[in-house]
Amino acid sequence: MNGAECLLRTLLANGIDTCFMNPGTSEMQFVAALDRVPGMRGVLCLFEGVCAGAADGYARMLGRPAATLLHLGPGLGNALSNLHNARKARSAVVNIVGQHSTGHLRYDAPLTADIEAFARPVSSYVRTVERADDVGKEAAAAIRAARVWPGQVATLIVPADFSWSEAGDPAAAGPLPRRAVATSDAVRAAAGALGSGEAAGLLLGGGTAFGAALEWAGKLAAGTGARVFANRYSARLEYGAGKFAPRRLPYFPEAAQAELAGLKHLILVETKPPVSFFGYPNYRSSLAPEDCAIHALATIEEDGTEALARLAEECGVSSITPERAGAAAVELPAGGPLTADAIGRVLARLVPAGAIVSDEMVSSGEAVSRNLERAAGVDVLPVTGGSIGQGLPVAVGAAVACPGRKAIAVEADGSGMYTLQALWTMARERLDVVTVILANRRYRILDVEMRRTGAGPIGPLADRMLDIGRPDLDWVKLAEGMGVEGSRAATVDEFIAQFGAAMEQAGPRLIEAAIGE
Amino acid sequence: MNGAECLLRTLLANGIDTCFMNPGTSEMQFVAALDRVPGMRGVLCLFEGVCAGAADGYARMLGRPAATLLHLGPGLGNALSNLHNARKARSAVVNIVGQHSTGHLRYDAPLTADIEAFARPVSSYVRTVERADDVGKEAAAAIRAARVWPGQVATLIVPADFSWSEAGDPAAAGPLPRRAVATSDAVRAAAGALGSGEAAGLLLGGGTAFGAALEWAGKLAAGTGARVFANRYSARLEYGAGKFAPRRLPYFPEAAQAELAGLKHLILVETKPPVSFFGYPNYRSSLAPEDCAIHALATIEEDGTEALARLAEECGVSSITPERAGAAAVELPAGGPLTADAIGRVLARLVPAGAIVSDEMVSSGEAVSRNLERAAGVDVLPVTGGSIGQGLPVAVGAAVACPGRKAIAVEADGSGMYTLQALWTMARERLDVVTVILANRRYRILDVEMRRTGAGPIGPLADRMLDIGRPDLDWVKLAEGMGVEGSRAATVDEFIAQFGAAMEQAGPRLIEAAIGE
Repeated sequence: MNGAECLLRTLLANGIDTCFMNPGTSEMQFVAALDRVPGMRGVLCLFEGVCAGAADGYARMLGRPAATLLHLGPGLGNALSNLHNARKARSAVVNIVGQHSTGHLRYDAPLTADIEAFARPVSSYVRTVERADDVGKEAAAAIRAARVWPGQVATLIVPADFSWSEAGDPAAAGPLPRRAVATSDAVRAAAGALGSGEAAGLLLGGGTAFGAALEWAGKLAAGTGARVFANRYSARLEYGAGKFAPRRLPYFPEAAQAELAGLKHLILVETKPPVSFFGYPNYRSSLAPEDCAIHALATIEEDGTEALARLAEECGVSSITPERAGAAAVELPAGGPLTADAIGRVLARLVPAGAIVSDEMVSSGEAVSRNLERAAGVDVLPVTGGSIGQGLPVAVGAAVACPGRKAIAVEADGSGMYTLQALWTMARERLDVVTVILANRRYRILDVEMRRTGAGPIGPLADRMLDIGRPDLDWVKLAEGMGVEGSRAATVDEFIAQFGAAMEQAGPRLIEAAIGE
Repeated sequence: MNGAECLLRTLLANGIDTCFMNPGTSEMQFVAALDRVPGMRGVLCLFEGVCAGAADGYARMLGRPAATLLHLGPGLGNALSNLHNARKARSAVVNIVGQHSTGHLRYDAPLTADIEAFARPVSSYVRTVERADDVGKEAAAAIRAARVWPGQVATLIVPADFSWSEAGDPAAAGPLPRRAVATSDAVRAAAGALGSGEAAGLLLGGGTAFGAALEWAGKLAAGTGARVFANRYSARLEYGAGKFAPRRLPYFPEAAQAELAGLKHLILVETKPPVSFFGYPNYRSSLAPEDCAIHALATIEEDGTEALARLAEECGVSSITPERAGAAAVELPAGGPLTADAIGRVLARLVPAGAIVSDEMVSSGEAVSRNLERAAGVDVLPVTGGSIGQGLPVAVGAAVACPGRKAIAVEADGSGMYTLQALWTMARERLDVVTVILANRRYRILDVEMRRTGAGPIGPLADRMLDIGRPDLDWVKLAEGMGVEGSRAATVDEFIAQFGAAMEQAGPRLIEAAIGE
């Protein structure tokens, strides 16, 4: 078999059955092999940033990698910003990047570039295949690298001639690595902090911001009085009825510092110490109080859920019942202006249990999220790396990963523009994604950041760089232009009607919500 | 003054008065300074790939750099693929990239990344400012690097706190460097080749594919019988009436090799030896005949126009009149299907003299171009690095650079989708750009490349990865969604009417041309 077929068989043999792709000439053999080797779902994206964000969303939901297929250095280049987010999410991703045939490289043709250099800033593992015989072995090694707990971005570069040459056999990546567990010292130190009589908190990240870990954290809160927080930049958060609800740390440092005020101990679970998103003149970047001792119960690589269970045992709280969020008690807003708060209330009330929310709301985030926390149980996929343009692609990946669940992308209008091509893939694949565009026609967050960075008043020239109206974006037309049904809601009642209808139907849908302040 | 103002003043003092930007928090001081320091035209782009492509187009037309303003590593990441094209075009570009404040960096906040590593694959010069006092000096050094003949991509990374801190004075980049001239040996060797009695050719690139160099090349052709070719991946080509017309080498290697067949000498002027775009099984990558001697009259860094003049002198052909293309003699097509050939004829007939054509036509390129070569004089900005998504942004930059001239982006539908956000900037700035989308609803070139790479028949799964219909893109709605007037032409008559009207009006306009085979 040729190298492309060997590569495809190796991916499939190791559980990778989805490939988000934007192929070019160097990848044609891989594309042709899709028909000869059954089992791979190829998902075409019209821009590589969509491939990368989709692979991130897929991994966040399933905990295992999808592949991407990208064309040479510039194709990978277009994927980098969402791969940055995937790296920060610790998502497992296997990038397959075509390279010129080895004999062609020395001619410095137009597309020739240093692909490894493109890959390095976002990849934990970068490797170029050196012989056609090695394709299977190298693909298996890349998959193994991607699956290092909790996940890594691995990039494998495949020269075109190794795809069309005879290659060796497909290879096995081997069993999933065993996940490291927290040390007994770490568990004892955390128990000591919780039993110290001083104010103590837990900060949950990684795999502990959703699922079984929440129950253990809730027991610790109920039994020891610890305050429990979630890292707002976690790959996945779980909200809603029946779940213990950690406090999600706010975006701005003053508010986050106020949440953490008074703590003498902060116990980290699969996360680093909390830090503000940006540094500002005369502000501390670190969010924990200066006299707060930081304890790492479990590192990002270790199994925090298991560590929380051991900690609960150590603290003698294993059988305590945690406080759980009640069933949704949010009232739909009765008319009034269409604010972010009103949208949040509509979402909280109408989003079905088990939905997935891709959250890139930026300046509207706090107002929507404080309502969404009272929704029926949802998984939320937040911003992890801060690279704009994540929301729609991540929704694509989550919807591909979880076909039985409703996906909702709640997206700022400015952010949505970076990777709007994701809408086409939603239409192509008939994904059950409802996109809500929070259209304030401005990079609104920058009004705030302008003040915070001490940049002074916003003059007319600066204003033009923050204003994304003039002309207004028409998201209904943009959606329809890519085959997605769209509508605009300018009032609360319109939004309730449109969003409610969208919850009742399957398939892609976009609602442009014209929000006021 | 603070660092942002010093930076802005340094750019202006050194002739950089246009900045294509997509700023974030770290760049707010620079944006605020736009109102305090007059003279900088800030052009907002809703995606960084548009900024980069626009800076490339600007430099290709004016031969001097614009700046970009980009937000941290991921913002630069989104610009990389079009910066790759700018690097291959040898366009002068000064990227200003914000970085976290120096005190914030050690916390590894979400957006923290190795910005220098992001910059390196596309930049000839990368530098991070290390002290606020150095902002002016470092900005001047970056400008100097960008202006190294014929131009380079220079990236300057500016930590946020150096923007808000007191900084030193603006600095001067110094006079434009003197351009190196070809050696006398090179001129004599080229003259020897032309006088050898053996078949000889010239290959023009860089600054010799347009302007005064064409006249010298034409004299050499007329006086010595040399065949004259243009590198199809040049930054800028000039076509049309009144100009000597070099042959543009075709895309596919067989056709290019046929053009060069029989040559015993090929004289390179501001270009490297010709090479095929991709390597294929059992094909040579090099396009010149195997027994053809290659002579470098002028390297890419040297002044090829001056070298051609000296060569003409050496050959005694300075006063010969070259053969020049006649006035446009293209007939408008009379009905019939709307093919690429018909579109090329309409363009050749209706594009006004002095227009600028941004060419990313891909599979339709040959059919359109062979007609466009008979247009009234136009400057064509071709694909240089092969990274898809160049056409619309380059048109933005060319239109900003040359406000009195009509710009026409002739764009494939697949390629256009990578950076369609450029349409919004055309609307915002009221740029005089007419975009023609050649809509065949397919990555058509890959049908050919699939065969050429020996990948075999296209099965149904592979077909879905080449087909960008299902659903169809509606470019009229996409354009209108970003504030650009759009229309669809399905017949020759409709295209003539719409394109003709677009030539008569100013401002942005898009025509989706539904082309058959």
